[in-house]
Parts: sequence; C-alpha cells; structure tokens
Amino acid sequence: MRQSEFIINLKPIGTVQTTAVEIPRHWSASDIEGRLVIDKKYREGLKDIRPGQRIVVIFYFHQSPVFTLRYLCQTPPHRDKSMGVFSICSPVRPNALGLSVLDVLAVKDNIITVNGLDMRDGTPILDIKPHIE
Amino acid sequence: MRQSEFIINLKPIGTVQTTAVEIPRHWSASDIEGRLVIDKKYREGLKDIRPGQRIVVIFYFHQSPVFTLRYLCQTPPHRDKSMGVFSICSPVRPNALGLSVLDVLAVKDNIITVNGLDMRDGTPILDIKPHIE
Repeated sequence: MRQSEFIINLKPIGTVQTTAVEIPRHWSASDIEGRLVIDKKYREGLKDIRPGQRIVVIFYFHQSPVFTLRYLCQTPPHRDKSMGVFSICSPVRPNALGLSVLDVLAVKDNIITVNGLDMRDGTPILDIKPHIE
Repeated sequence: MRQSEFIINLKPIGTVQTTAVEIPRHWSASDIEGRLVIDKKYREGLKDIRPGQRIVVIFYFHQSPVFTLRYLCQTPPHRDKSMGVFSICSPVRPNALGLSVLDVLAVKDNIITVNGLDMRDGTPILDIKPHIE
C-alpha cells in the first residue's frame, strides 16, 4: 500500500474551553487562560501533570478551510513575505494539526487549567505530551 | 455532536527513511540520520526549510499496539515508576501521535535529510512545523 492511500483515524481525547473570543495568533504571544476538559475515561493518564509544568498539546484546527495546493505558500499576518506552509504555524495545512506549549495552572479530576491558549473554544484535543526543551 | 463521536481523518504527507534498526527511545537522545521523503505535490511548502534549522515533525506510530485503558499508566524504560500516559512519550497512547524535534542537514527537492531520528523506517509523517523555543 502506498503511504498516500493510508488513512489515519483519530478521536479527540477532550475539548478546549475558553471564554476568550480574541485568540492570539500563537501560544508564544498568548496570556489567555482556559481549560482542557479531557474525557473522564482518560483521567488516570493525567495523574503526573502538575501545576507549574509546561505541556505540549496537539489539537485539531476544526474550523480551518479545506487545504488545497494554493495554500502551500502563505503570508503570515506578522510577516511580509510568502512562506512555505511547513515553515509557518498557519491553521490551513495538509493535516490541520496544531501544537501549543501551555503552562499548567491546576489539574483537578479530568480538567487541566492552562495559560497561553491560542486555540478557540471547542477545539478538539488529540494528545498531551511532556514538554522537553 | 459530542466530541467523542467526532472522527478526524488524516493522510500522511510523507514517510521516514532510515537504515537504522536500533532506534533511540527519544529524539533528545538520538544521533541517527535519515530522510523525510515528502509527497512531491507538497514540495513548494518545504521551500523555507534550511540546513541548520530545527523542525518539529508530527508523525504516526504505525506499529503501536492498539491502545486500551490498561495503558493509561506505563513505566517508561528509563524510569522506575508508573506514570500517566500524558506525561511520557510512549508510542502506546490514545491517539498514536509522535513528536520529534530534528536537525535539518539538507533539503533537496522533496527530501529533507535530518539528524536526531527516533522514528522507524516507514513511519508516516503527518506535519512539519517550525521549532519555536
């Protein structure tokens, strides 16, 4: 089977909750708080996440337009030149995966309170990993 | 629709090629070279990736066993205690997504030569992003 015919199915492990409406373009420029509400069945997997840690969150840009090849180069809002999609953080990409590094403020039950959000309310969360410098 | 019923379909953008058989457990402990062979239709999207840069690669652990809840806590090979899956880099996780930070050695046409691989030969690549400290 050629890789290009290989389809990967993923199910969100949870959802982002935030009351923020104006979302910064990137986590490195964000001071937005919110909550990662993880499916209760995965709660035990959160047991070693502590306040003060940074975590890597992989999510799905669920409101992005469908990617077509005309988006292979894009001009980011803060730049003045067109750049290859794999060198920028645009939500419009072949696989609409996002990655944010967030500060953990609190963990209670199946909910992680975080700072540094650049995801919209309702964003599906796919994975959480430790942040390794 | 509940998030838990929401299915996300992804298609690999390319494949890892390496002759290495012994794969380090993590990119931060790897000195393995290899190639990211990206689908030719996405070549233009690679145009701003340069030798000397670090890139973030999101990939799929295509040889992982199916995740079940008994894998919510696992003891990593280099640790002596059981940890929550979202605090470790195990390939056995609810969504079998991997993340590596790799050093770019060369870019030619649709192929990126990298150092720091912790993926097996044939691993499907899902996304490439700039590395932001």
